[in-house]
Amino acid sequence: MAITITVFARSPDGGRGLARDMAVRWALEEVGADYAVRPVDFADLRQPEHLARQPFGQIPTYEDGRVTLFESAAIVLHIAETFGGLLPVEPGARARAIGWMFAAIGTVEPPIVACEQAGLTEHDRPWQAERLPLLIAPIRQRLLALADRLGGAQWLEGAFGAADLVMIGVLRRPAAAPVIAELPILADYVARGEARPAFTRAFAAQRALFLAAEAAAPRPVVSAPPLP
Amino acid sequence: MAITITVFARSPDGGRGLARDMAVRWALEEVGADYAVRPVDFADLRQPEHLARQPFGQIPTYEDGRVTLFESAAIVLHIAETFGGLLPVEPGARARAIGWMFAAIGTVEPPIVACEQAGLTEHDRPWQAERLPLLIAPIRQRLLALADRLGGAQWLEGAFGAADLVMIGVLRRPAAAPVIAELPILADYVARGEARPAFTRAFAAQRALFLAAEAAAPRPVVSAPPLP
Repeated sequence: MAITITVFARSPDGGRGLARDMAVRWALEEVGADYAVRPVDFADLRQPEHLARQPFGQIPTYEDGRVTLFESAAIVLHIAETFGGLLPVEPGARARAIGWMFAAIGTVEPPIVACEQAGLTEHDRPWQAERLPLLIAPIRQRLLALADRLGGAQWLEGAFGAADLVMIGVLRRPAAAPVIAELPILADYVARGEARPAFTRAFAAQRALFLAAEAAAPRPVVSAPPLP
Repeated sequence: MAITITVFARSPDGGRGLARDMAVRWALEEVGADYAVRPVDFADLRQPEHLARQPFGQIPTYEDGRVTLFESAAIVLHIAETFGGLLPVEPGARARAIGWMFAAIGTVEPPIVACEQAGLTEHDRPWQAERLPLLIAPIRQRLLALADRLGGAQWLEGAFGAADLVMIGVLRRPAAAPVIAELPILADYVARGEARPAFTRAFAAQRALFLAAEAAAPRPVVSAPPLP
């Protein structure tokens, strides 16, 4: 099965593994699947060829010859279902693990992304300083709840799996960092994920692509959008 | 299989079917499953008994004797997998349909909820008027992309299913309304969903619960949070 994923030719995160292809690369490394990458520039994202794969003009996309998919968590779920090993077998535990994937995307991530978006698009607006506590509060509320639930467990639902992979991807976002720093349960959880060999390989692959683009055509660092 | 879902005893939307139990009720009506409701007040959401079911203190939850779940889209997916009829059988189409569920929750909904949250918590702040275009722009961008993809199709992936049920739930949120009004493709899509008998039954059930609570202990209308 020949797998191709679409990724940024030159990720705006500077190769820090924060773009949404990271979760897909990580999942593919966990299951030991080979894959090719199709690098795209921002201009490519608005082209009909890309929009046919990803109607919202984002990355990543995933193709395996049988199906073309977008939405990183959906791709991770598809990889988990196709290759096995990343979802519990018992039906109840499997449903709970998928529930955590939706919780990561639908409950934990939105306030984190909202904070980052404000940092990108409103950092020079007069209200930004006063709004910052309003942006941080829901992040803290949700991460406290997540830490309470995780407690002393290593992973969200039994063994490491797709739920952890997606949740840790969300927790690695920059705007979560100040709150994670207050919560050792979550800091340790993220560190456990980042210590997995499959994570390391995925991280190295996306970083190598960025560094090759940088070497081919260096740009000033300021070209990367600021992150809070 | 005895199914119980947790819902607001008195939904802050005033029975307009905008709370997150609506998608779960709709899915259960589509598959013809009986269910009971456990009504909770806001104070109940912080109680250990509820947090054991829903760690983020939200509604709905779902129990069927085999599994306890939260996150409405995950519950809808579980209902679809348990009862059949709401997901394509062909594996590629099934993966794409699940992809749309993640797209609804992860890409389409966040800017809509962000706009509503700002309406709730920042409506009296001096920056709200100037920020409003910043809140509307990403809603419009995503709904335009969705309308382009939907085009002349009736539903997102073949026959009506879980993907449409979750997406239409997102599109029915109040902050999407001004943009939907500009996009007949999406207005018609939402209307097709709302015309389904299962939607009508689900809507009536949640409304009846609100009206009963209202009749038992009337409160001034101002007790419902304002929605933009």
